Amino acid sequence: MKKPFKEMSREELLQEKSVLEAKYEEYKSRGLQLDMSRGKPSKAQLDLSNGMMDVLNSDSDMRCVTGVDCRNYGVMDGIPEARHLLAEMSEVPEKNILIYGNSSLNVMFDTVARAMSMGVCGHTPWGLQGKVKFLCPVPGYDRHFGITEFFGIEMINVPLYTTGPDMDMVEELVSSDPMIKGIWCVPKYSNPTGISYSDETVRRFAHLKPAAPDFRIFWDNAYSIHHLYDDDQDVILELLTECEKAGNEDLVYKFISTSKVSFPGSGIAAMAASEANLADARKAMFYQTIGHDKLNQLRHVRFFKDMDGIRAHMKKHADILRPKFEAVLDTLDRELGGLEIGSWVRPKGGYFIAFDSLEGCAKKIVAKAKEAGVTMTGAGATFPYGKDPKDSNIRIAPSFPTPEELALAAEIFVLSVKLVSIDKILESR
Amino acid sequence: MKKPFKEMSREELLQEKSVLEAKYEEYKSRGLQLDMSRGKPSKAQLDLSNGMMDVLNSDSDMRCVTGVDCRNYGVMDGIPEARHLLAEMSEVPEKNILIYGNSSLNVMFDTVARAMSMGVCGHTPWGLQGKVKFLCPVPGYDRHFGITEFFGIEMINVPLYTTGPDMDMVEELVSSDPMIKGIWCVPKYSNPTGISYSDETVRRFAHLKPAAPDFRIFWDNAYSIHHLYDDDQDVILELLTECEKAGNEDLVYKFISTSKVSFPGSGIAAMAASEANLADARKAMFYQTIGHDKLNQLRHVRFFKDMDGIRAHMKKHADILRPKFEAVLDTLDRELGGLEIGSWVRPKGGYFIAFDSLEGCAKKIVAKAKEAGVTMTGAGATFPYGKDPKDSNIRIAPSFPTPEELALAAEIFVLSVKLVSIDKILESR
Repeated sequence: MKKPFKEMSREELLQEKSVLEAKYEEYKSRGLQLDMSRGKPSKAQLDLSNGMMDVLNSDSDMRCVTGVDCRNYGVMDGIPEARHLLAEMSEVPEKNILIYGNSSLNVMFDTVARAMSMGVCGHTPWGLQGKVKFLCPVPGYDRHFGITEFFGIEMINVPLYTTGPDMDMVEELVSSDPMIKGIWCVPKYSNPTGISYSDETVRRFAHLKPAAPDFRIFWDNAYSIHHLYDDDQDVILELLTECEKAGNEDLVYKFISTSKVSFPGSGIAAMAASEANLADARKAMFYQTIGHDKLNQLRHVRFFKDMDGIRAHMKKHADILRPKFEAVLDTLDRELGGLEIGSWVRPKGGYFIAFDSLEGCAKKIVAKAKEAGVTMTGAGATFPYGKDPKDSNIRIAPSFPTPEELALAAEIFVLSVKLVSIDKILESR
Repeated sequence: MKKPFKEMSREELLQEKSVLEAKYEEYKSRGLQLDMSRGKPSKAQLDLSNGMMDVLNSDSDMRCVTGVDCRNYGVMDGIPEARHLLAEMSEVPEKNILIYGNSSLNVMFDTVARAMSMGVCGHTPWGLQGKVKFLCPVPGYDRHFGITEFFGIEMINVPLYTTGPDMDMVEELVSSDPMIKGIWCVPKYSNPTGISYSDETVRRFAHLKPAAPDFRIFWDNAYSIHHLYDDDQDVILELLTECEKAGNEDLVYKFISTSKVSFPGSGIAAMAASEANLADARKAMFYQTIGHDKLNQLRHVRFFKDMDGIRAHMKKHADILRPKFEAVLDTLDRELGGLEIGSWVRPKGGYFIAFDSLEGCAKKIVAKAKEAGVTMTGAGATFPYGKDPKDSNIRIAPSFPTPEELALAAEIFVLSVKLVSIDKILESR
């Protein structure tokens, strides 16, 4: 076990620093350009879905199971076979699913936009109710916070633990403040910490008693089937079912997509919710579009066939992602374990690893890594308004670089952490 | 030349009616199911684009001209080759085009939604300005009016002539009322009348001096290249250029899509506008999506190659559509010419023929045709709130039925027109 930095003497720290600086300068001199900033699948992962380009060709029967020509207008809800597949992926009955376009982020944006201008299920539009608010478990997904910020919705930080958000705080705020209209959740393999909500957390969500009748849980199940391991997977309770049991079926909007199953930007997205919520969504959809891309829906169903097909496909993704996650995690363990200058969770799925540095160090660590050629997600991005009150959370996205690039990037990252931490400790003495 | 119905005696009309009724009953007894209600391409037209399913396969290079992998996230504005192609189709420079998803209707909806909740180019959101209004040239496109109705925008009818909207009325209203924020236009082969705006109309649009700084022309150039004839095509002035000449470059949003070029619902859509307007649109797009479907953009560019490719393709569409339009128009000419019970324009392109019956007859004609198995667009649909003040406009959509079905449907339609008109004339005596 290594000696924690804090227990080292000034001389020991300065000695360590000079060794680290030499290594850092060596890396820096290589003029590297490595990117661990975004959760983008790698080329090898994209290649897994290339066969999808072959399932429809000019001779194909392009009718869906009900005989509708997918090349023409119509079928607003999505073709039945796509609804079937995405319902199974969302763990809800087919009556509770609506297929959208190529991006679940877009569905979430439109859902907030609709609530702002038209209201939720007949209630006064959020935009006419004054300053409405959202709860934001932190750290969280920057693009969720971007949507609520764009619409001028006030965001309230809620701590995210390894079991999920602080539910005492959620329950108290939601039940007492009618201006709180929603909460952003990534319940499984959370972005960025990789944790999954406990059964108790999900049940407490289902039993919320919001002061606002137009409060909704925005449940972004982006990584529901994105496991890293065959034999060690997180399982979460299905929230819509739990809400129904609690007599609260209208409480949740679930979002899902195949962006990180097939092709990012060319996948299909869906919303799962109660029939009342879907009817409300359809009202706007009727005016917004004549229908989504049914040929792409057909392409997905013919390629994956069923959930078994999707699960088999996800194992191939896992085979590519697992060594990358492990390379980063092993480097963190080996280089930072015992030093007490940071903490992290070993995720069993998803796209991210979250690193918590000593307070006040995240921005400096990201800058230090950047100086040596490693781009990380900007420090603070995982918090509303880009403001991490402790300046300690850093999101690591290991999916895109090659394993070789990743090994280098992880080395440079831990060097940056150590160097910034030593300065911090020395300053504070 | 036939004798106008109005000049016939009661006996002549009753005699004519009894002959027509016998024919009508004969058609009715056949139990037909014919649909002239929506502007859907026919199967033969869809088949023209089947080759698009072959241009990308698992071995294809799926990078765009700048080397970006179209299978992954990114490239918010659309891949350069798609921007190039749709800019040419929109007759604007590439800097003035932004590629969206699969539907221009969706782009229009989102543009109105954005103006309502966020405002136009920094101005107060429309939704916070009180009751905002749109001008609606009538008859027009039901789904345009649906969008403005959905957002609670008050719609004001403006007569549409063969040269375009009544520009005296447009100029007066737009320059005097700051609550008027937009106007819906289909400038070429208008839906439903088939007329194209004159050069003078376009120039007067470009020179509008709106009382509202956040007024915009919603220029839906849906049928810009949808000609029926090689040698007799409408040409309209390009509005953005005219606006620039008039020092009014921010006045217009142009919309375009390939929905009726390739596949409805699986095409690509775009907005053309000034750089300031596009910058404003990009601000929302940044939060709304991580990017549109670049593989579909690539598919379109590789299939059509360039504007010459698109023009050659549109000729094939015209070859299928022309006989259908002519079948309907010839039946109207032959059966109704000289009777003075209706009027219509012979369009040179687009998807519709508009028929104006005697006042107070449209609903009855549509019901009469329906009774004999012919579905038309609901009477009134071409007006805001579904209310045609004269109850006279009927939209005929000849694209979807086969030529044989269309010949039958047109016969039943003219019979319905004659029967309802005779009753109307007899009643009014």
